[in-house]
Amino acid sequence: DSSKQDNTSQSTDLVQLQKDPSNWTMWSGQYNGQRYSELDQINAENAGQLSPAWTFSTGVLRGHEGGPLVIGDTMYISTPFPNKVFALDLETHAIKWKYEPTQNPQVIPIMCCDTVNRGLAYGDGKIFLQQADTTLVALDQKTGKVEWKSVNGDPTKGESATNAPIVIKDKVYTGISGGEFGVRGHLTAYNVSDGKMAWRAYSTGPDDTMLIDPKKTMNAVTQKPVGADTSLKSWGGDQWKIGGGTTWGWMTYDPELDLLYYGTGNPGTWNPTQRPGDNKYSMTIFARDPDTGEAKWLYQMTPHDEWDYDGVNEKILVDQKIDGKDRKLVVHFDRNGFAYTQDRATGELLVAKKYDPAVNWASGIDMKTGRPKLVDEYSTDGKVDQNVTGICPAALGSKDQQPASYSPKTGLFYVPTNHVCMDYEPSKVDYTAGQPYVGSTVAMYPGPQDIVNPTKEFEGKRMGTFIAFDATTGEIKWSVPERFSVWSGALATAGDVVFYGTLEGYLKAIDAKTGKELYSFKTPSGIIGNVNTWKYDGKQYVGVLSGIGGWAGIGMAAGLTDPNAGLGAVGGYKDLKNYTQLGGVLTVFTLP
Amino acid sequence: DSSKQDNTSQSTDLVQLQKDPSNWTMWSGQYNGQRYSELDQINAENAGQLSPAWTFSTGVLRGHEGGPLVIGDTMYISTPFPNKVFALDLETHAIKWKYEPTQNPQVIPIMCCDTVNRGLAYGDGKIFLQQADTTLVALDQKTGKVEWKSVNGDPTKGESATNAPIVIKDKVYTGISGGEFGVRGHLTAYNVSDGKMAWRAYSTGPDDTMLIDPKKTMNAVTQKPVGADTSLKSWGGDQWKIGGGTTWGWMTYDPELDLLYYGTGNPGTWNPTQRPGDNKYSMTIFARDPDTGEAKWLYQMTPHDEWDYDGVNEKILVDQKIDGKDRKLVVHFDRNGFAYTQDRATGELLVAKKYDPAVNWASGIDMKTGRPKLVDEYSTDGKVDQNVTGICPAALGSKDQQPASYSPKTGLFYVPTNHVCMDYEPSKVDYTAGQPYVGSTVAMYPGPQDIVNPTKEFEGKRMGTFIAFDATTGEIKWSVPERFSVWSGALATAGDVVFYGTLEGYLKAIDAKTGKELYSFKTPSGIIGNVNTWKYDGKQYVGVLSGIGGWAGIGMAAGLTDPNAGLGAVGGYKDLKNYTQLGGVLTVFTLP
Ligand SMILES: O=C(O)c1cc(C(=O)O)c2c(n1)C(=O)C(=O)c1cc(C(=O)O)[nH]c1-2
Ligand SMILES: O=C(O)c1cc(C(=O)O)c2c(n1)C(=O)C(=O)c1cc(C(=O)O)[nH]c1-2
Repeated sequence: DSSKQDNTSQSTDLVQLQKDPSNWTMWSGQYNGQRYSELDQINAENAGQLSPAWTFSTGVLRGHEGGPLVIGDTMYISTPFPNKVFALDLETHAIKWKYEPTQNPQVIPIMCCDTVNRGLAYGDGKIFLQQADTTLVALDQKTGKVEWKSVNGDPTKGESATNAPIVIKDKVYTGISGGEFGVRGHLTAYNVSDGKMAWRAYSTGPDDTMLIDPKKTMNAVTQKPVGADTSLKSWGGDQWKIGGGTTWGWMTYDPELDLLYYGTGNPGTWNPTQRPGDNKYSMTIFARDPDTGEAKWLYQMTPHDEWDYDGVNEKILVDQKIDGKDRKLVVHFDRNGFAYTQDRATGELLVAKKYDPAVNWASGIDMKTGRPKLVDEYSTDGKVDQNVTGICPAALGSKDQQPASYSPKTGLFYVPTNHVCMDYEPSKVDYTAGQPYVGSTVAMYPGPQDIVNPTKEFEGKRMGTFIAFDATTGEIKWSVPERFSVWSGALATAGDVVFYGTLEGYLKAIDAKTGKELYSFKTPSGIIGNVNTWKYDGKQYVGVLSGIGGWAGIGMAAGLTDPNAGLGAVGGYKDLKNYTQLGGVLTVFTLP
Repeated sequence: DSSKQDNTSQSTDLVQLQKDPSNWTMWSGQYNGQRYSELDQINAENAGQLSPAWTFSTGVLRGHEGGPLVIGDTMYISTPFPNKVFALDLETHAIKWKYEPTQNPQVIPIMCCDTVNRGLAYGDGKIFLQQADTTLVALDQKTGKVEWKSVNGDPTKGESATNAPIVIKDKVYTGISGGEFGVRGHLTAYNVSDGKMAWRAYSTGPDDTMLIDPKKTMNAVTQKPVGADTSLKSWGGDQWKIGGGTTWGWMTYDPELDLLYYGTGNPGTWNPTQRPGDNKYSMTIFARDPDTGEAKWLYQMTPHDEWDYDGVNEKILVDQKIDGKDRKLVVHFDRNGFAYTQDRATGELLVAKKYDPAVNWASGIDMKTGRPKLVDEYSTDGKVDQNVTGICPAALGSKDQQPASYSPKTGLFYVPTNHVCMDYEPSKVDYTAGQPYVGSTVAMYPGPQDIVNPTKEFEGKRMGTFIAFDATTGEIKWSVPERFSVWSGALATAGDVVFYGTLEGYLKAIDAKTGKELYSFKTPSGIIGNVNTWKYDGKQYVGVLSGIGGWAGIGMAAGLTDPNAGLGAVGGYKDLKNYTQLGGVLTVFTLP
């Protein structure tokens, strides 16, 4: 069988491997973060006939994020803590090898939003696992043997990790978690060959530690160099040292521009009154040279954050026309509820629109300054011990870690969203290394019902929507209401089918053009994983991890019941337990 | 929809409910233990088109035995320790209610063969759960509210529980586990209404504690009354007090004869030299009056056991012709490798044949005495500290807890079997309450390959077979080789399809007449649960719990690696981990 042959032939060149849509070599399929597949065997006509082909329980409970990588005849998946890795044989579905690290369980309580792991990376014959305890591990692709390990942080200081690494050329890149523990975020590059650190770029502090060149690193809005020590100057005293800006999100890469894109998280302490200034460069998109780490341009979405709107969401690289002109764009659906469309070479801000009309903390983005136009009523600054109510979106944003997808065929983004609002009461908090550094009490609840797609379906309890979005205009094209936030990563395909999972556990196939549901199947547990696709032995498959958890599912994952626990998510998602239970299972679908 | 209406109309009469094959009201579907369904929508022609309809993760790891009960529009399932109970809505697949007992985890280490639970019972509007800690609980069928609890044993003495209770008229019956801890077994009846104990019948000891009437209780072989204190006399000294004969298996009932059937487990200590005598009534089938508990007849399969061949396997009640004569039979596939066919009114022994030709510890059953004809070489008696090798079957028998099924259409039994042999080295052991009382070191390995159905398929590693067996003649009609023991309960249907699951996790549909595989699907984890069937809203469904564990899977379930651990199963089933991982998931199948 020739398709199988081709598929199995291994190349160490990741770009080359990505050209064959039989493979799914990284979190997004391709470097561009589009989560789009050229495969079209499954299409809008036949998707209704999908059914499960095989399944695999990981033996681990709690939240399963990320998704399966497929290279040739092998699938690679990882689990939440203790971060098991399985290599599965696509022919027999047997386990080729398994890797299970020994990690100190004391990392569990410092993981803010469940013990998730967002998946593996592949490069140069190695599978890369970013363990919860910050250890980055390179495993032999064929045997699972440890090639090297590098320790990227210190859990005793509140540092942990959940992100999927990515590989570019001879380096592998990884981030750090701990924005709720006063961790000073950084992105770090290691050599693929030996695991030696190549460079590290902090998110806050002196320019040299941030790999910012004050004369060359461009401010995306002014299109001028940022100038000297702009981060340092945006903080009071030493606050930048515990200033957050963690890097737990997804990374993308443009091989032509040779730029790496990622974002930084919330500034240290959720109580904004304790940290006057813009708190640079928390909540910022960075474009960096992957070889040197040098920042080429940057843009802060939410200066002086007052709501925990981490800027880490995936930066999707697409080529579209704006005002009739071909543009190389980077688009991202920020936690703060705005979708930003920028020139990805320069950062120039082209469009910034709400992708959920419920967003109320800002009335819009000032396109001159790039700053949000704040609405006083929903500001939490200077309001220590005051409960600010009715803020939309909630801290987990209009979208959180769940990556969107883009179809170059329809020119639309398919975005899994949250529709949740909150009450936010900041309070004074002292920093102790390794202890929570939050300083806010949050309550979450469903957003207003009557704004997008008015529907009686969930009786005033709608907490999510799956939308098709035009990033050149900022328009929502269609939207599918969901009872809970859509916490699963979307997939778009050349068959004009888009896929996502729901927190109740449904895998759904949707018509990319109309938003019509084509297929739905209740998988064993709530889905917070990403839907990926591949081809094996001539057949297209779609696979997703179930396993309720993540921030939305933290109540169930960690067994919490106080509604304010889990940073407010426990109360917000309290009904989830009536629909699903814990359990990590891969479900693979195909046509008959 | 009228079928739905009918199905939903509740009756408190269990016999009545059982008449509607839309329901599956007890472990075996019907009182007779046949695990046969009149449903024929899924048949040998269309079973190839089966596919998963929906799934449900229980959120519990370790071995999931038993299977779903279905009454009207609701499904009831239970999990291993901590013994969660879920009522699932068959329309929405949402959770109607959940019950989770608080149990002392100290019961876990006294459970010999994993923390399994063999499922729920239903009667009089109540769902009955036999908890691991021996507490029997009655839950309101509609709300899950606790109606009553009765404590049936004492875990500090090594007493635990895994069996499915059954309900007959106004009583609910349950057993006790702990044969590896010197527990004195008993069967106990509680009032369905208030949980008060109605009677208790011990397996060993004085007649009155065993509810044996020396003048009325019949010896099945002699067809004469057993006589006085036959149990007491078959033990040295007080050994009967720690003499085992636990009652952890399945129970069946004949409403016409008004007899309850069950079996007793191994005698206390696996070292036979320490307990001279027949060790009555371990390894015995009992037929009792369910109202009074009085033993009507009894038959000991393996007097003075030397191999741990517990006699608890399900007693299946069938009506078949033998020598041209209609007989009311009880058939059971004993751990010891013999299939016993008896008159179920009197116990008269009609047929007793090996159902795996590999069985070598006895050459046959003496039909006059009912005793096995022992083969010296494989006797372990008087061989303290000697390793007796090559005994077939292994301690877990030619069949263990996995219940067989029977089709009245084909007149055949469908039996999930083990094909495993062992080395057995008895050693002296002292009794301490609550401590293991085993006294033997066991190693297990695949049985010989060349006896039944010679096949190269599993390269000399075959550990199981699924067979069709004629219990009137003792003939194997066809057999399907399996890599591992078939530890899942079988189902036969009027559609001439039989179902079972494998330890790798495959749910298989087989042609009842030919043994040909019609359908196979890899469920999330290894299957040790029973396949059940029901009808909802006009459609036939088949459902099974995955979740590797039980004795065969104890290595994976409890994280053991010493090959002699888990009473020898760890080494025997060491390859399982290359095929599947832990995880409790219900998978429901239907036709498109
Ligand atoms: O600030 C941080 O370091 C940090 C880390 C993480 C993480 O690593 O999972 C999350 C967040 N923040 C966060 O703000 C957030 O909304 C979030 C959601 C999730 C998730 O996996 O569901 N993780 C995280
Ligand atoms: O003697 C006992 O009390 C006792 C209890 C149990 C049990 O409760 O699971 C098993 C056994 N014995 C046993 O011999 C055995 O083979 C066995 C298998 C299993 C299982 O669930 O896989 N349980 C038990």
